[in-house]
Amino acid sequence: MSHPASDSTLKSFLPVSEHGHFPIQNLPYGIFVRKNASQQSPAIGVAIGDFILDLAVLRQNGFFETPHLKGQDVFSRSSLNAFMALGRPAWREARSIITRLLRIDEPALRDRYDLRAQALLPMADAQLHLPVEIGDYTDFYASREHATNVGIMFRGKENALMPNWLHLPVGYHGRASSVVLSGSQVRRPQGQSLPDGASAPVFGRSRQLDFELEVGCLVGTGNALAQPIPIAEAEKHVFGVVLVNDWSARDFQRWEYQPLGPFLSKNFITSISPWVVPMDALEPFRIAGPQQSPDPLPYLRHQQAGHFDIRLQVSLQSSKMASPQILCRTSTRYLYWSFAQQVAHHTVTGCNLRTGDLLASGTISGPTEGSYGSLLELAWRGTKPIKLNSGEQRTFLEDGDTVSMTGWCQGEGYRVGFGEVVGTVLPANPQ
Amino acid sequence: MSHPASDSTLKSFLPVSEHGHFPIQNLPYGIFVRKNASQQSPAIGVAIGDFILDLAVLRQNGFFETPHLKGQDVFSRSSLNAFMALGRPAWREARSIITRLLRIDEPALRDRYDLRAQALLPMADAQLHLPVEIGDYTDFYASREHATNVGIMFRGKENALMPNWLHLPVGYHGRASSVVLSGSQVRRPQGQSLPDGASAPVFGRSRQLDFELEVGCLVGTGNALAQPIPIAEAEKHVFGVVLVNDWSARDFQRWEYQPLGPFLSKNFITSISPWVVPMDALEPFRIAGPQQSPDPLPYLRHQQAGHFDIRLQVSLQSSKMASPQILCRTSTRYLYWSFAQQVAHHTVTGCNLRTGDLLASGTISGPTEGSYGSLLELAWRGTKPIKLNSGEQRTFLEDGDTVSMTGWCQGEGYRVGFGEVVGTVLPANPQ
Repeated sequence: MSHPASDSTLKSFLPVSEHGHFPIQNLPYGIFVRKNASQQSPAIGVAIGDFILDLAVLRQNGFFETPHLKGQDVFSRSSLNAFMALGRPAWREARSIITRLLRIDEPALRDRYDLRAQALLPMADAQLHLPVEIGDYTDFYASREHATNVGIMFRGKENALMPNWLHLPVGYHGRASSVVLSGSQVRRPQGQSLPDGASAPVFGRSRQLDFELEVGCLVGTGNALAQPIPIAEAEKHVFGVVLVNDWSARDFQRWEYQPLGPFLSKNFITSISPWVVPMDALEPFRIAGPQQSPDPLPYLRHQQAGHFDIRLQVSLQSSKMASPQILCRTSTRYLYWSFAQQVAHHTVTGCNLRTGDLLASGTISGPTEGSYGSLLELAWRGTKPIKLNSGEQRTFLEDGDTVSMTGWCQGEGYRVGFGEVVGTVLPANPQ
Repeated sequence: MSHPASDSTLKSFLPVSEHGHFPIQNLPYGIFVRKNASQQSPAIGVAIGDFILDLAVLRQNGFFETPHLKGQDVFSRSSLNAFMALGRPAWREARSIITRLLRIDEPALRDRYDLRAQALLPMADAQLHLPVEIGDYTDFYASREHATNVGIMFRGKENALMPNWLHLPVGYHGRASSVVLSGSQVRRPQGQSLPDGASAPVFGRSRQLDFELEVGCLVGTGNALAQPIPIAEAEKHVFGVVLVNDWSARDFQRWEYQPLGPFLSKNFITSISPWVVPMDALEPFRIAGPQQSPDPLPYLRHQQAGHFDIRLQVSLQSSKMASPQILCRTSTRYLYWSFAQQVAHHTVTGCNLRTGDLLASGTISGPTEGSYGSLLELAWRGTKPIKLNSGEQRTFLEDGDTVSMTGWCQGEGYRVGFGEVVGTVLPANPQ
């Protein structure tokens, strides 16, 4: 069995509840700094229960002397990139070693209290950092339900789904510089919009600030220019997956997006979750995606099920609310185009992916109203305000609103979780 | 006088002809490696006549002991980024020192033959590298004539210029990973297109491969997230300018671009010229741009002339031709939106620019047929084939075609030149 972590009987000596996001079956990677250390040196950590396992310490103690990891000083870094660039054999060696060390029946770490004190720290004692240096950020548009909803609202029912949509994973380039870690505050942007019925645009704060619920693949190993990645190889290039909130200013978007696509309405900030869930942890949750009709062209045809069932949830808490309220429950099972199809399409003309590139899915919406991944859709462009349990209403985000997204794969008695990506809206800068 | 290099009487002890691109008034920066050196260590060089001045050697000899350069080890690098990040005061100190050292009446370098032997090498003995690590690449659409021409061809005369076009510099995010140095070969891409009259797309080699003549600003110093750059400050953030050929597959573009903009049709390769011409070298060629009507919103209003007159030229040489043939002569004077307006707009919603970002202008077309910056326009979507002096015709690029772009500002008796950006089309990969 090449995926030991899919074993639901696997247990760690560190306790994880059945709803905990970070059991031994997960083992996501992140970058952390010890809060109270004299030296603030970043390192790669793995989340396990409420703890972080410090891979730099493990390496110092000689635990990574395997063929693809030996001599590789990749764990004492400020990003995952160097580790990611080693490729899948190295990732699998690391995962295998870490899985073994954390097992309940393995004494190598469990019984060495000196080593445990060094290598394991409570999450509360760590400051998490952006896990990767992102080279290029691409945003797809891979949910049919989302593309249809937005199409109806922006272009009318007749032109909802463009003629190309069922033939290729539509995508566009996003902005890498403004991808930030979960927890970063979100300044409401100012810019141009065209008020309804006006003939000239106005400048001001966005009045239609929105979230977009997405997941994002992080590229582990890339391809050379002019050498496309065949679909059968595509997943091998993906290191792992994070949650993405692609904050959007809908009023700016509507005014600016033709003919070259969204620009300022999306590039002011994009938040990602800190823990990168490895593809091997998702393996037990592989499913066939929606039936694709018409058949895609051969370069986009899967030889195996190419989708994953990651359950997703968005909550909102206004400054008047005592607790968050769930607005959306959906799943990546509703994505029409798979991760592998996205990679194969992205590279087919020869575009080179690089270690650390982020390929986001686009907003994920399911078939029912409670499964839409943006306020634009949930409140149907302002026509169906959402009632909050504080008595407030929302069509778009207000200052002080905190948006929290979470996700997990549901195993038997355990969850492979993504933690969360969260952000609070701050008022616009004074003009 | 804050811009000594604008002085047409300024002369170097190194000879430069009046049509030479690299007189003492220019002094563009690039990255080079000595071809026959035992150690292949990259360094920053400045082009002067047919020579490269090695700034790492100058630094070793104590020539950069000024307030903003002292102690800064930025010249022995594989990119300009570290130098660019120091900011405008440092750039100006360096330019002032280099200008002085190269003057005909300054003995400090001229008369030290030992130092000249170390610090000056013939261009033929150097291998040039990509000058910057590009963080994000943005492509604008700033030429009104180009936007109008393409609009007519893709959407008809009625919808040629979108309603937003005169109100904001339309732009979109391009792909940074596939920006390559001039001289890199261009593999013809394969991908999806929708043949005329067909109801389903086909896969195959692009039959409408094109060039796009552009110039690109390289960002020297960026801005923090959520802190826009006011237009009056915008040029201070720009380090310099290069030529850009944004190779495009028009057949793929037409099929994929709605609604999120061009993606694979543009991201397979983008070529830039090796020498970065500093903004201070362009200063004497500042002009007022086209009258902007309607008045742009206040954040886009210039307090000074914001355009530059860079004369541009595109040549094509097929594999059957003995010499290149000029297809297009135009100028950046035809850009509607200035560099400063592009920077101000890009950051107005809070998007952060970073050192090394590339902001390209979009295709530059003038008002006459011979001044269009793409084959799409020159051959008017294939309806007016271009006659080559070999007897061949062109509507789009054929395998073996070499496209060469050059540009210069014309001073009195000298040119501030950009060198060239060149690329040859290779046949598509076998299917």
